[in-house]
Amino acid sequence: MLDIIIGNRAYSSWSMRGWLAVRLSGLPFTETLLPMWSPEWDTARATGPLALSGKVPTLVDGDVTLWDSLAIVEHLAEQTARDLFWPTDPAARALARSIAAEMHSGYPDLRRDCGMNVRRTYAPAPLTPATQADVDRIVALWTLARTRFGGSGDYLFGDYGAADLMFAPVATRFRTYAIPLPDIAARYVDAILAHPHVAEWIAAAHEEPWVLDRYER
Amino acid sequence: MLDIIIGNRAYSSWSMRGWLAVRLSGLPFTETLLPMWSPEWDTARATGPLALSGKVPTLVDGDVTLWDSLAIVEHLAEQTARDLFWPTDPAARALARSIAAEMHSGYPDLRRDCGMNVRRTYAPAPLTPATQADVDRIVALWTLARTRFGGSGDYLFGDYGAADLMFAPVATRFRTYAIPLPDIAARYVDAILAHPHVAEWIAAAHEEPWVLDRYER
Repeated sequence: MLDIIIGNRAYSSWSMRGWLAVRLSGLPFTETLLPMWSPEWDTARATGPLALSGKVPTLVDGDVTLWDSLAIVEHLAEQTARDLFWPTDPAARALARSIAAEMHSGYPDLRRDCGMNVRRTYAPAPLTPATQADVDRIVALWTLARTRFGGSGDYLFGDYGAADLMFAPVATRFRTYAIPLPDIAARYVDAILAHPHVAEWIAAAHEEPWVLDRYER
Repeated sequence: MLDIIIGNRAYSSWSMRGWLAVRLSGLPFTETLLPMWSPEWDTARATGPLALSGKVPTLVDGDVTLWDSLAIVEHLAEQTARDLFWPTDPAARALARSIAAEMHSGYPDLRRDCGMNVRRTYAPAPLTPATQADVDRIVALWTLARTRFGGSGDYLFGDYGAADLMFAPVATRFRTYAIPLPDIAARYVDAILAHPHVAEWIAAAHEEPWVLDRYER
């Protein structure tokens, strides 16, 4: 049985990606939510299941422990079927892996200036030039994927997959921070937020009791 | 035929990872070196082979263009054999993917304070606490992999693979910045620098004519 260890649903964008990956796998799983910066969290990181990784999400798969959303995606793709996570067409798959990896290491200004908080909505505010450049780059990549490989589907490569779940916490930010988007990107944000897995995560975040000042503004 | 597009060997740590991945694949390939910030570089990014990615490394595989070192690794593993890049044992493979992904998105202080320059050696200098924390984390991960899965081999998981090539530009920094290391990590740095692919890259860097002030200090 898989156990996915996550932080607060409201704030932990990496946990969201890892959880969405497990959810997409279709495999049975349990989840362990550790409220961030709580005594349980500290214990888990000191001597518990996060002692190895130090991070959420961490996936425990029997004797195997792994962490990091991209590693979790590739692990689950091996356990189930690659085509569940990545497009079947080689050119589409190459682009999907490229933009998922770019998301994984990129967009530092967007991350810093627009921290994920799926429970809030913010009034529109001007972005710094660096954050706007991150937004523009993401929109360009989404547009490229959608126009080249989206076909009649709603997602980047038609069907929902790993590239979409990697960008899900970006889509939530675009909405919660009321960032202006061209139509093709706005429609994609709608599609991501309407996906049952994403909607399930956000609904559960609203039920969480924890409010951490450091992530509220 | 594969073509790997890279920046300066002296400075471009991500190019080094992509090139090492292609080299490890054993597939025939050509390479295109674009001197960074030169007119050729600008043209390639505006209207040439980097127009899509904007980045090095970019791999052109027939009709397929992809970028980002991790995406290149997974693409090449599919084209050849997964076991050439990742350990065969599932627990080892999960750890290899986890630490490769952590490297991919992590260690911002080490990257910023100790930019890669494989042609230089620097006098030992104190590290900031944040950079020392990055070093300590990397040493802990290397030690974990070596002690648990290294066996009688010289590399993180015994044989040289994707996790090693992801950390190769970290190993060069540890040497060029004379960063003090425990024995197990120092021996691993020796092994990485002695690997024929890594040695080939560094030797070619010494033959490059370009010196960019922004990367020299």
